[in-house]
Amino acid sequence: MGHDLTLDGLRDLAEGAALLGTGGGGDPYIGRLLVERQLRAGRTVRIIGVDELPDDALVLPSAMMGAPTVFVEKLPSGAGNVAALRALERHLGRTAAATMPIECGGLNSMMPLLLGAQTGLPVVDADGMGRAFPELQMETFAVYGVSGSPMSIASDHGDTGIIDAVDNRRMEWLARAMTIQMGGAAYICDYPMDAATVRRTAVPGTLTLARRLGATLRQARAAHADPFEALAGTLADTIYSHGMVLFAGKVIDVERRTVDGFARGRVTMAALDDPGDRLEITFQNEHLVARRGTRVVAIVPDLICTLNSETGAPVTTEALAYGQRLTVFAISTPDIMRAPEALRCFGPSAFGLSEEYTPVERLAAAARA
Amino acid sequence: MGHDLTLDGLRDLAEGAALLGTGGGGDPYIGRLLVERQLRAGRTVRIIGVDELPDDALVLPSAMMGAPTVFVEKLPSGAGNVAALRALERHLGRTAAATMPIECGGLNSMMPLLLGAQTGLPVVDADGMGRAFPELQMETFAVYGVSGSPMSIASDHGDTGIIDAVDNRRMEWLARAMTIQMGGAAYICDYPMDAATVRRTAVPGTLTLARRLGATLRQARAAHADPFEALAGTLADTIYSHGMVLFAGKVIDVERRTVDGFARGRVTMAALDDPGDRLEITFQNEHLVARRGTRVVAIVPDLICTLNSETGAPVTTEALAYGQRLTVFAISTPDIMRAPEALRCFGPSAFGLSEEYTPVERLAAAARA
Repeated sequence: MGHDLTLDGLRDLAEGAALLGTGGGGDPYIGRLLVERQLRAGRTVRIIGVDELPDDALVLPSAMMGAPTVFVEKLPSGAGNVAALRALERHLGRTAAATMPIECGGLNSMMPLLLGAQTGLPVVDADGMGRAFPELQMETFAVYGVSGSPMSIASDHGDTGIIDAVDNRRMEWLARAMTIQMGGAAYICDYPMDAATVRRTAVPGTLTLARRLGATLRQARAAHADPFEALAGTLADTIYSHGMVLFAGKVIDVERRTVDGFARGRVTMAALDDPGDRLEITFQNEHLVARRGTRVVAIVPDLICTLNSETGAPVTTEALAYGQRLTVFAISTPDIMRAPEALRCFGPSAFGLSEEYTPVERLAAAARA
Repeated sequence: MGHDLTLDGLRDLAEGAALLGTGGGGDPYIGRLLVERQLRAGRTVRIIGVDELPDDALVLPSAMMGAPTVFVEKLPSGAGNVAALRALERHLGRTAAATMPIECGGLNSMMPLLLGAQTGLPVVDADGMGRAFPELQMETFAVYGVSGSPMSIASDHGDTGIIDAVDNRRMEWLARAMTIQMGGAAYICDYPMDAATVRRTAVPGTLTLARRLGATLRQARAAHADPFEALAGTLADTIYSHGMVLFAGKVIDVERRTVDGFARGRVTMAALDDPGDRLEITFQNEHLVARRGTRVVAIVPDLICTLNSETGAPVTTEALAYGQRLTVFAISTPDIMRAPEALRCFGPSAFGLSEEYTPVERLAAAARA
C-alpha cells in the first residue's frame, strides 16, 4: 500500500503546495531541493493513506515555524528536522509510526517529506489546515479537540525545546517567541496523536491534491492551455470544489514587514485595462482577505492565490514585487473547514477582521447578480 | 544533620539575601511571605550542608526568572514552582534528592526554600552566584563546566517547557523569551547535577551567610549600633572578607526601564554635605558599576549594595526613588568568583563595560592614597 514519491511527483507536489499555500507557507522551492537531494542519494519517501495505519499508531506531524521572509534569506539546512522529532519521541517515551504535514501549503508540505526521507518514516497523505495558516492553533486538529502540546522545537544550531502549554493558543504564543530567538525559523513537531485521531480530525488526501494541482499546471503549460481553466477543472471533482479567477492585473504597491515572527502586509493590484479598478490583499504570512474597491471578494479560510498570469505559477507573499502581472485565483475550502467551530479557529475574526465569513462562490455569484 | 528553618531564621535570611542581591534578585519580601505561609501551615524547610548528600544524588537548582520590576506588580503565586521541578524530573527520568539556589540574592534565595516546603526536598546551603546576577549563564556552575541544560520553565498558568540549548548563553537567550511570553516572570530549574559536582562548583554556605548578615542588621538596630560597621565585622571572618561604605547621600535621579526582560537603568546620588559630590550606579537587575564622578569605586562581580542610611535595610533597584537617603556598601567577592574564567563569565566585559575588573578593596586603598 502507499507509494514512493518520485522526483517528478515531488516537483508537481511542490508547485501544487505553493498554490495551496495561498501566498504563504513559505516558498516550497527550498524544501523541494532538500527532498530532491535525499531522493538522489537513494533515500525514499513513502506516502500512505490515512487508513493505512493501525488505530493506536503514533503520528507526529512536523513543520517549520517562522516568517517566510526569513526562509528566503537564511535557507533552512534541514539539520533540526530530525532533532525535533527525536526530542518529542524522547519526551513522550514512544516512537513515531509516521509523520504528516500540519499544513499542506508551501514549504511545510515539503518538511514532512524531508523527515520521511531522513528517518524512513512514512508520510500520511493528509494535513491539519487543508491549506496554509500562520498560527499553530489554526488546525482542524485543534478544532476537533486535539491538544498541540506537548510539542518540540529545534533550531539549526542544535538547540531543542519542549513546550507543554495549557491550550493551543498559548502553545503558539510560547513557540513563536522561541522561533524568533532561534533566528526566525525553527523545526517543530506538534499535535502528537494516534492514527484514529488523525482519521477523525485531518483534511484527507491533501498531498495527493497538491500533486494533482501541480500536474495540472505543468500539463496546461505543455499544452499551451489556460492554466486557470485547467485548475478549476481539476478542483471540480475534489472537496475543494470551486476554483475561480477573481482578478487579473499588475502589482502597483507592496507593503511588507517581518514583525512578531510573521510576514505582514498588503499588496495592491490594478487591472491592466482600467487602472482605477483595484484589488487589495491583506496578508499575515498567508493571504487573508481580498477587497476589490471596498467589496470583499474572498476571505479566510477560502484560499486566495496569487499566480503568474502567464504561467499560473504561484507567487508567495515574500516574492511579491512591483510590476508583476498576477491573476488572483480563489479556491473554496472543504466543508470540514467551514463549520462554525472551524471558523472560530481560523475564520475572519481569528485574524481581527470585522467581516463575516461568506463562501467565495456566494460572493462571486452576488457580484455577477 | 542539617537544620529546619525557623520563622525568625527565615526573616534574617530574607534580609541578608536582599543585601547579597546587590540591588537585584527581586525583593525577597514576597518570597518570604510565600515561605512563611508554608511554615505556618506546618510544613518544614530542611537546610543541609553541601557535604551531606551522597556523590551521585541529583540536585535540581531552582529560581524565578524575569525582571524584578514585574515581580512587584504581578506577585508570583508559587504555583509554577513545583511544576518546573516535576517537568525537569520527568524529562531526566530521575527524582531530585535536593534543590538549591542558583543565586543567593533576593527573591531567588527564597524560591528554593518554598520548593523545599512544597515538596519536602532539602535545600543545599550553597549557590551558583554568591550574590545575584541577571543572566542564567552567569553561574560558577557554568564557569566550572556544568551545562545549564536541560532546564525546565513554568508559568503561573500551567504552561511548562524544557530547553536543551547548545550552550549556557543560548539557554539564557531562549529562556528569556519564554519568560517574557509567560508574563515577564517564570519558574525555572536548571543546571541539573550530582552532589559531587555541586561540591566542586558552588559557592558554599551562602544561605547561612545571608542569615548571619540579616541577623547582624537586626541586632545592630536593636542595639542602636552602626549597621555598616556591624556588617563589616560579620563579613571579616567569611570568604566575603571586605565590607565597606563607599558613599552616603540622597537619590537625586533614577532612570529605570523594563526592557528585554530586564530592569535596566541607573541611579544618581548626591552627598548630603556637598551636592557636587555625586555617585552613579548602573544596573541590569543588579548593580553593575558605581562611579564617583568619573572614578570607578566598585565594579562587578564585587557587590554594590544600596542600603537605607538609617536602618541598613537593603533597597532593591525597582524600589529606588528620588529623595531616599542611601548608603552604598560594597562587599568583596570570594576568590572563586575572581578567577580569570569567572571574570570572563560575569566580570565587567560580560556586561559590555569597558573597565577592567579591580577588586573593590584595591580601589578603596587607591582612593585613600
